[in-house]
Amino acid sequence: MVRKPTKDDRFSFGLWTIGWTGADPFGEATRPSLDPWEYAEGLAELGAWGITFHDNDVFPFDASDAERERIYTKLKNAADNAGLVIEMVTTNTFSHPVFKEGGLTANDRAVRRFGLRKLLRNVDLAAEMGATTFVMWGGREGAEYDSSKDLYAAMERYKEGLDTVAAYIKEKGYDLRIALEPKPNEPRGDIFLPTIGHALGLIAELEHGDIVGLNPETGHEQMAGLNYTHGLAQALHANKLFHIDLNGQSGIKYDQDKCFGHGDLASAFFTVDLLVNGFAATPDAHRYEGPIHFDYKPSRPEGMEGIWESAKANMEMYLMLAEKAKAFRADPTTQELMKNAGIFELAEPTMAEGESFDELFNEKEVADFDPEAAGLRETNMVALYQQAMRYLIG
Amino acid sequence: MVRKPTKDDRFSFGLWTIGWTGADPFGEATRPSLDPWEYAEGLAELGAWGITFHDNDVFPFDASDAERERIYTKLKNAADNAGLVIEMVTTNTFSHPVFKEGGLTANDRAVRRFGLRKLLRNVDLAAEMGATTFVMWGGREGAEYDSSKDLYAAMERYKEGLDTVAAYIKEKGYDLRIALEPKPNEPRGDIFLPTIGHALGLIAELEHGDIVGLNPETGHEQMAGLNYTHGLAQALHANKLFHIDLNGQSGIKYDQDKCFGHGDLASAFFTVDLLVNGFAATPDAHRYEGPIHFDYKPSRPEGMEGIWESAKANMEMYLMLAEKAKAFRADPTTQELMKNAGIFELAEPTMAEGESFDELFNEKEVADFDPEAAGLRETNMVALYQQAMRYLIG
Amino acid sequence: MVRKPTKDDRFSFGLWTIGWTGADPFGEATRPSLDPWEYAEGLAELGAWGITFHDNDVFPFDASDAERERIYTKLKNAADNAGLVIEMVTTNTFSHPVFKEGGLTANDRAVRRFGLRKLLRNVDLAAEMGATTFVMWGGREGAEYDSSKDLYAAMERYKEGLDTVAAYIKEKGYDLRIALEPKPNEPRGDIFLPTIGHALGLIAELEHGDIVGLNPETGHEQMAGLNYTHGLAQALHANKLFHIDLNGQSGIKYDQDKCFGHGDLASAFFTVDLLVNGFAATPDAHRYEGPIHFDYKPSRPEGMEGIWESAKANMEMYLMLAEKAKAFRADPTTQELMKNAGIFELAEPTMAEGESFDELFNEKEVADFDPEAAGLRETNMVALYQQAMRYLIG
Amino acid sequence: MVRKPTKDDRFSFGLWTIGWTGADPFGEATRPSLDPWEYAEGLAELGAWGITFHDNDVFPFDASDAERERIYTKLKNAADNAGLVIEMVTTNTFSHPVFKEGGLTANDRAVRRFGLRKLLRNVDLAAEMGATTFVMWGGREGAEYDSSKDLYAAMERYKEGLDTVAAYIKEKGYDLRIALEPKPNEPRGDIFLPTIGHALGLIAELEHGDIVGLNPETGHEQMAGLNYTHGLAQALHANKLFHIDLNGQSGIKYDQDKCFGHGDLASAFFTVDLLVNGFAATPDAHRYEGPIHFDYKPSRPEGMEGIWESAKANMEMYLMLAEKAKAFRADPTTQELMKNAGIFELAEPTMAEGESFDELFNEKEVADFDPEAAGLRETNMVALYQQAMRYLIG
Repeated sequence: MVRKPTKDDRFSFGLWTIGWTGADPFGEATRPSLDPWEYAEGLAELGAWGITFHDNDVFPFDASDAERERIYTKLKNAADNAGLVIEMVTTNTFSHPVFKEGGLTANDRAVRRFGLRKLLRNVDLAAEMGATTFVMWGGREGAEYDSSKDLYAAMERYKEGLDTVAAYIKEKGYDLRIALEPKPNEPRGDIFLPTIGHALGLIAELEHGDIVGLNPETGHEQMAGLNYTHGLAQALHANKLFHIDLNGQSGIKYDQDKCFGHGDLASAFFTVDLLVNGFAATPDAHRYEGPIHFDYKPSRPEGMEGIWESAKANMEMYLMLAEKAKAFRADPTTQELMKNAGIFELAEPTMAEGESFDELFNEKEVADFDPEAAGLRETNMVALYQQAMRYLIG
Repeated sequence: MVRKPTKDDRFSFGLWTIGWTGADPFGEATRPSLDPWEYAEGLAELGAWGITFHDNDVFPFDASDAERERIYTKLKNAADNAGLVIEMVTTNTFSHPVFKEGGLTANDRAVRRFGLRKLLRNVDLAAEMGATTFVMWGGREGAEYDSSKDLYAAMERYKEGLDTVAAYIKEKGYDLRIALEPKPNEPRGDIFLPTIGHALGLIAELEHGDIVGLNPETGHEQMAGLNYTHGLAQALHANKLFHIDLNGQSGIKYDQDKCFGHGDLASAFFTVDLLVNGFAATPDAHRYEGPIHFDYKPSRPEGMEGIWESAKANMEMYLMLAEKAKAFRADPTTQELMKNAGIFELAEPTMAEGESFDELFNEKEVADFDPEAAGLRETNMVALYQQAMRYLIG
Repeated sequence: MVRKPTKDDRFSFGLWTIGWTGADPFGEATRPSLDPWEYAEGLAELGAWGITFHDNDVFPFDASDAERERIYTKLKNAADNAGLVIEMVTTNTFSHPVFKEGGLTANDRAVRRFGLRKLLRNVDLAAEMGATTFVMWGGREGAEYDSSKDLYAAMERYKEGLDTVAAYIKEKGYDLRIALEPKPNEPRGDIFLPTIGHALGLIAELEHGDIVGLNPETGHEQMAGLNYTHGLAQALHANKLFHIDLNGQSGIKYDQDKCFGHGDLASAFFTVDLLVNGFAATPDAHRYEGPIHFDYKPSRPEGMEGIWESAKANMEMYLMLAEKAKAFRADPTTQELMKNAGIFELAEPTMAEGESFDELFNEKEVADFDPEAAGLRETNMVALYQQAMRYLIG
Repeated sequence: MVRKPTKDDRFSFGLWTIGWTGADPFGEATRPSLDPWEYAEGLAELGAWGITFHDNDVFPFDASDAERERIYTKLKNAADNAGLVIEMVTTNTFSHPVFKEGGLTANDRAVRRFGLRKLLRNVDLAAEMGATTFVMWGGREGAEYDSSKDLYAAMERYKEGLDTVAAYIKEKGYDLRIALEPKPNEPRGDIFLPTIGHALGLIAELEHGDIVGLNPETGHEQMAGLNYTHGLAQALHANKLFHIDLNGQSGIKYDQDKCFGHGDLASAFFTVDLLVNGFAATPDAHRYEGPIHFDYKPSRPEGMEGIWESAKANMEMYLMLAEKAKAFRADPTTQELMKNAGIFELAEPTMAEGESFDELFNEKEVADFDPEAAGLRETNMVALYQQAMRYLIG
């Protein structure tokens, strides 16, 4: 039996996760809705360390200033009492009809301005709540039809929007970083910034890109058939992995938001391996330092007991996988197999420091290298993977 | 009947396209192989303007220096005689067993050095052939198993390799730019730099990124379920669309390399619309200026007549789509529908020049904006798309 | 300009299509809801011939018997007045929470019995409305987790349910056939009877399978990466194509329900080619004889004008494609190209009538056949396809 | 450490699996080829019980009768000496160019007759080798272009071909059953009989369908995004699961043929759970009784040692998963959780034996059933799945 989660695990949940009532494109809600503090308190009891929310998970879209403050204050107090950190706050610019063709990239300029105001107000809220990450998921930025957007202008507006929010954070002096959450599609046919890569690409064009990074979600990358762990690695390489959204997805289909590990299990193992053990050759550098945040939905058939079971399942899966991953890497046989597979050799630069092109073409090396022999070399990659499987399920 | 292609169309073909003999994972070649100059001459007769090739499309992997030079000179002469431009040259670092676990990111350092030498020699060749683009497709850079690479080191080595090739180009003073070709998978389970976005992300980290851009292929983006035209637009926005590979793909499956337009036809229409008409609001800026390059394969069932039919089909499809796209955009009704759909409004900055945050939050605008009413607005996007369909098939 | 739809086109729409108000997994409704007769009247004005509905598109789940009758009578009268046929009726066994883990295959037997009663009551309604098809879409029959169903028992219960409904129809003497609508996933992770094939497989096991056939939906097959036209052909071959649901889908992702032809356009052309021209070698046999039924959703960004535009777009796309397909087939060049590609030869039996195995192995034929030469034959398939493209977009 | 495989495990391998030399669409072979008996002997040493092969895995396509017999006799002797059963034989109708547009469904009738002769000769061979299953994978039956086949005729010819082979088996009195292997695509754009369901559908139309069943492959179903275990269950329900091909696939992409369990691990667990434990409610009935056959490919980067490592990995994965699955089901807590999730209740018929429609509509039950309350019920499906995960990785 795996141990119980503790605050040291830094597990964090979106209130919209446990709070999803089950309405989907083909059916009504299957569960009643609790107040936000009730979810928070329940999560604290299960061992969570943090919570996160969209503005409208907590107060209505049309709440008055007073109502807004009353509610978020009550939530903040509940979180404080439960010892919960509000580590991230985000803004809903996708549910209300006003955003039906985009928030930052709506063709309608008045809507874009409204969206920007909504974002900035929640930057203030995030800071007030003590959050250090401000996630931006542009779920409605995109199109079903290629003719419905000037695609260059859309990139310009996305850039403008992100730079504006970042500039505001800097002007206010908040200790807050923006984390973009890519997704390939759903609810739009094609969403802008569909993958980790596309977000990295646009961030590189920003004026205030220094405080803009990524919040990659397991299932979102997998909806494009991409390897989530590879994506995390590229984000870490760009020094842009600010936050993560762990969950489960079973292949290329609608967004399932299953519990972490309840989708592609082996991939989840290697994600956790990266998070708890770091890269093979440089285990102590380039680490993800943020919370372990779950962005999942309790399956629609589950009842009110089921939602707590599902929250527990995320943490239990993570802890089981973490134990397995640590043991796998600690085993000297693993290290030997990694060496045989050349894992560490990849960390050696291809050219020596200061080596010239002439030196690369030195006659002896050119003459000595036999590509036919090298083509027959053992790579031992299956043996290493099988070792991982022995730890994962053996 | 659509007109015949001319040199002004700047249609270009890889020799490996028309020259594919039909061997696939489950079957042998169905067609004999011609000499490279025979393909070149045939393409010139059909109206092509340019050709491109991998080193080993032309001379064998183990060709001696003399044999290598004899063959490529013969090809260059044939191209000159046929009035063909050799606009791009690329290097095969994926077919020979030596590269079985990578070229620039092989765990084996000696292989990486060998790969680098092979690349640099072909940079020289590209310059000698008069090519202005040097495409790099890292088809073997990747893994089937998450444990088989240190993913951070892989990014480091990829970066090192690209910067080394770029530095070499600069040192030699060649008029040559590198164009990366992303692909999500096949022949590796997960290829590094799987999409346009990931390539843009890594380019932003390069020391010599100024001469490194993209060569996106229609089918490769579609193999990840992504919108090719959206990808081109983001690459243009980053000023990185150096070259293109047009072909056809029918959804998320193995790499089909069908003729351009023989896969997702409507998407091909909007790709051509972008190429010939530019962006809606800024039709004369941010244009792709390179050749119209086809990277397709004649279907395996086709015989030797069929390969020429298929080459013609690519050009005919492009020309038919270009005519349709020009007529679509030139129609005043289209412009009216675009206006109704707010296409041009997206090009207006969301905030006025120099506008402050206070001005964004000005009381009147805040009070006047009614999100409920805005949520009910007509967006007219289906009407505009249907207009496009009327031009495409009407 | 394509002509206006007429009753002779037998275009039919689900009331839930035009009536979709835009609520999706990430957002609220963007449009108000009209009364069912308002949708019906509007569709009639646009040229529709028929309408279809789920019980709860028309009256509430918990309607009293009197309310139920009052409402459906009002709809029936409106349809009659508008000259609309109610050609199909179906039952919603997926929206209400009671069906959250299945209707006919719910683990909970009381739910299954409730579901069966709901179905049978609507069989009566369908007959009363004059419908000749009773569609059954088992959207909640399935699972997210492999452990959550006894999969053999699920097939048993599905079979029992279908046979019960069919037996009821026979007992009542209704002129009604059941049409199953397969779908691979969404809203369940894996839906039972995920494709046309799986439905054909189970139908073959039924006791009353003679009145059970298929209602395949374009997008549903494409969500599994399958070729819709191939699926229709296999259903026709099994004599089971009772009804169709035309719409548009752009690849493997969430269920988009775009307008027909607004997804994979070339595939839509060949679907229409099959519907209007029949099979190449036997154009007059094995035809689909039912209505042209659209099961789409007006895009969420559209307003109330947009929903009518989108309804028109379905019909216009069909009519444009039908014109193109007829002209394509009528062209003698096409027939010549089809002959060259061996299209008609496939209709000749491989063995002559009454031919023995010895005759198949006759020495002369065995000796004469040269597989190497046959391997080099021209198949002319690209030329034929390109001819189709010339008609589609030329 | 998991125990070593024994003959009792009935593990069987295709000679083409271990014997794959690594040629793929983008690269040459990375490994030399051994003689078929060398692979057989090696597999026997690792604990395999059986082997299987295509005709041309063993002797060349153009082998003379004498050469053919000499080689297969040598293989048979080697198998006998090693105590290996040749449990299945299959025919290659996909590699040679003659079959480039189909075998049984080639447009060219002479090719179809040639294909049929090739099949029948190998039926004789299969019987001579003592095989009891004759697999038919129609890898080239299909099309890239919708216009290139008369789809009705294709179904007719497929049917004719299957019935002819089956009739031949019966005429000869062989103890042999045909097992179809569905695949959605690759090497054709769309393959006929793309899934388990489509094959079941066509089998139901055969004259000699009693000896025609299925050989479903893990990766093939997953290439269409379908649940392999669900497919096995439907095949078992139709009493048509004659043989299986286990391997690993990571989502919707090219055919990966990884080791069993090296793709979707959790799905592999539930496949093994079905194979070793049977269905939950009827564990002793409806069991798959055939061999545990692996149809995988050693990864291309592996050397000659790696191929044996990969063969071992398949068996080790199966044995580890089998142990886990048995323990999972044997745990009384699991049985309790299954009961709570209603797993066994699904095996109860929805209607009582002989129950009339009137009884189904009995007033008391109708009045008593409260759908709102039932909609709120706990389904406990996540808890049960999490229990499975505790056994799989805990």
